[in-house]
Amino acid sequence: MTEKHKVAILGSGNWGSTVAKIVGSNVKTKTESFDPEVRVWVYEELVDGRKLTEIINSDHENVKYLPGKKLPENVVAVPDPIEAVAGADILVFVLPHQFVRGLCAKLRGNVREGAFAVSLIKGVEFDENGIVLISDVISKELGVECSVLMGANIANEIADEQFSEATIGYKNAAHAKLLQIIFQKPYFRIAGAPDIPGVEICGALKNVVALGAGFCDGLGYGNNTKAAVIRFGLLEMVRFAKKFFKNVQYTTFLQSSGVADLITTCYGGRNRKCAEAFARAGGRKSFEELEVELLNGQKLQGTLTAKEVHEVLQRQKLMKEFPFFEVIYDIVYEGRPVEQFLQELSEKELSLEGNIE
Amino acid sequence: MTEKHKVAILGSGNWGSTVAKIVGSNVKTKTESFDPEVRVWVYEELVDGRKLTEIINSDHENVKYLPGKKLPENVVAVPDPIEAVAGADILVFVLPHQFVRGLCAKLRGNVREGAFAVSLIKGVEFDENGIVLISDVISKELGVECSVLMGANIANEIADEQFSEATIGYKNAAHAKLLQIIFQKPYFRIAGAPDIPGVEICGALKNVVALGAGFCDGLGYGNNTKAAVIRFGLLEMVRFAKKFFKNVQYTTFLQSSGVADLITTCYGGRNRKCAEAFARAGGRKSFEELEVELLNGQKLQGTLTAKEVHEVLQRQKLMKEFPFFEVIYDIVYEGRPVEQFLQELSEKELSLEGNIE
Repeated sequence: MTEKHKVAILGSGNWGSTVAKIVGSNVKTKTESFDPEVRVWVYEELVDGRKLTEIINSDHENVKYLPGKKLPENVVAVPDPIEAVAGADILVFVLPHQFVRGLCAKLRGNVREGAFAVSLIKGVEFDENGIVLISDVISKELGVECSVLMGANIANEIADEQFSEATIGYKNAAHAKLLQIIFQKPYFRIAGAPDIPGVEICGALKNVVALGAGFCDGLGYGNNTKAAVIRFGLLEMVRFAKKFFKNVQYTTFLQSSGVADLITTCYGGRNRKCAEAFARAGGRKSFEELEVELLNGQKLQGTLTAKEVHEVLQRQKLMKEFPFFEVIYDIVYEGRPVEQFLQELSEKELSLEGNIE
Repeated sequence: MTEKHKVAILGSGNWGSTVAKIVGSNVKTKTESFDPEVRVWVYEELVDGRKLTEIINSDHENVKYLPGKKLPENVVAVPDPIEAVAGADILVFVLPHQFVRGLCAKLRGNVREGAFAVSLIKGVEFDENGIVLISDVISKELGVECSVLMGANIANEIADEQFSEATIGYKNAAHAKLLQIIFQKPYFRIAGAPDIPGVEICGALKNVVALGAGFCDGLGYGNNTKAAVIRFGLLEMVRFAKKFFKNVQYTTFLQSSGVADLITTCYGGRNRKCAEAFARAGGRKSFEELEVELLNGQKLQGTLTAKEVHEVLQRQKLMKEFPFFEVIYDIVYEGRPVEQFLQELSEKELSLEGNIE
């Protein structure tokens, strides 16, 4: 008899708590294959004088990050990450990406033999050679295979059990199958693509495209223009992904993690919102000011990613191949007037070959 | 010395007149290769007691279908289609699809040797074997090769010279190159794909998907759900196209004619609007009533296409492979409650293989 699978969740913010609700509810109905206990590592903090882990374990609610939603009683909050992963062979990473390396350093040597990971973290790192995937960071730091799960997933809507879907990017099909079992619900449909970079990169680059969509809205441009801008952004996402990872597939961009997440981000979302306000202000307000004014403490990712993308393109002498990403960088960081947003795109010759690279 | 190219435009509605404005302006600057005169076949009617062709030729404005926009003086309106195509080797079809066969019957035998066509008509026909492309109808009726030009193209926005793009679907690359020359403007970017069915089919099927997007809006569903619905619709568009035309390419759906036109139609557009009102009315109003109430004389294409698609799927015993198209048919024609819209999609197992067919 093989040992049962056991899931640990690393992170307990809005999305982590939503995922704990889903995974806890799924594994407790599948006790022939899964240990029903799902430990969640919670960064300990005090809420009205009580420890957050104690609140979760007694009231079964993350009152700070997912108020109003009951968590299954088999979800157990622990403040120590090593205790959280003890005995677990499926490690779900769902925390802000700047904390990943520190967490992995703590976990190293404490992970069960045969364990594998899945990253739900939208974001990438950049180094002198190009992109570093968070899944690769986890994989290398812990010596485990790491899949990803991404999609058009606004956490609160999924916590409300509104119909959504997501994509698993994987190398190991058996892992993907187990992940589909623990994540899928009638309201949360899980597809897969054997293309980790293709799935993972969109989650970061879409925020740059959303700045472009916001400029359109702020400049009062119409539906055609916005659709064209979103598509030009998609093309550069594809081109960028294929430039740095040779086996990226076009079909991956038709997944929830690709086109669907991009659409949601370009019609809602904080990057679009701040970029719209930036264009309306006609250069009189900086993104830093707008972030404080509009985001209520949340951070803007698109402007930072635009800068990191620009630095990679500059180092690799690829700036001319990415006029869309470049003009966004120029507007955000170099004081270029937002009205010039479409200038390069208006001159760009498009391929008649249907080769969209 | 080779004879100069000469363009004729068949149709002079809102989109046809917009296209006449673009093509007329382009060819008059390229008189080394093009005859500057662009004849437009105008279905003759009286406007305030004057013939529409005479108004266009004296005032250089189609006051009925594109009021307020000047047409170049080298655009000449003619009421006789045979006179319109006389000497022309590039025939631009831009008229409602129900008039295509009748027009072709008149033109047959009157087309210049070596001429080719391009269809800007969004729509397809259906017969017992599946889909009949309008480009194939034109091609067969006139014995000419026929490309297509499609995209996220709301005519009035392009007439206002707002930034847009479109896709040429072609077999003959030399024709595509000529079409790019006559259609491209700084505000209207033209790409190409050597995949006529992949480009052409989206223009019809997107209207069915837009009904689904409208149901989402009317039922008050959130951003995740709408993105998921648009993507499920896109997948069925891809699957349908590949089912009936073997060489359809995935990349074609990343063109303006694919994902961009779909986005515009699912966020704006009359099909979305009527479907939203239908869902809000909770079964108390039919699509026929809503069409009269909301569309000011315009016609709803999505409901008719949904029926035609259903009939093809039924004949070919493919209904189970297209749960999204089928549920829309059931809601529009079979009285199924709109609240059941997502039922099959909630049960559908999605592929982990990343093979999105």
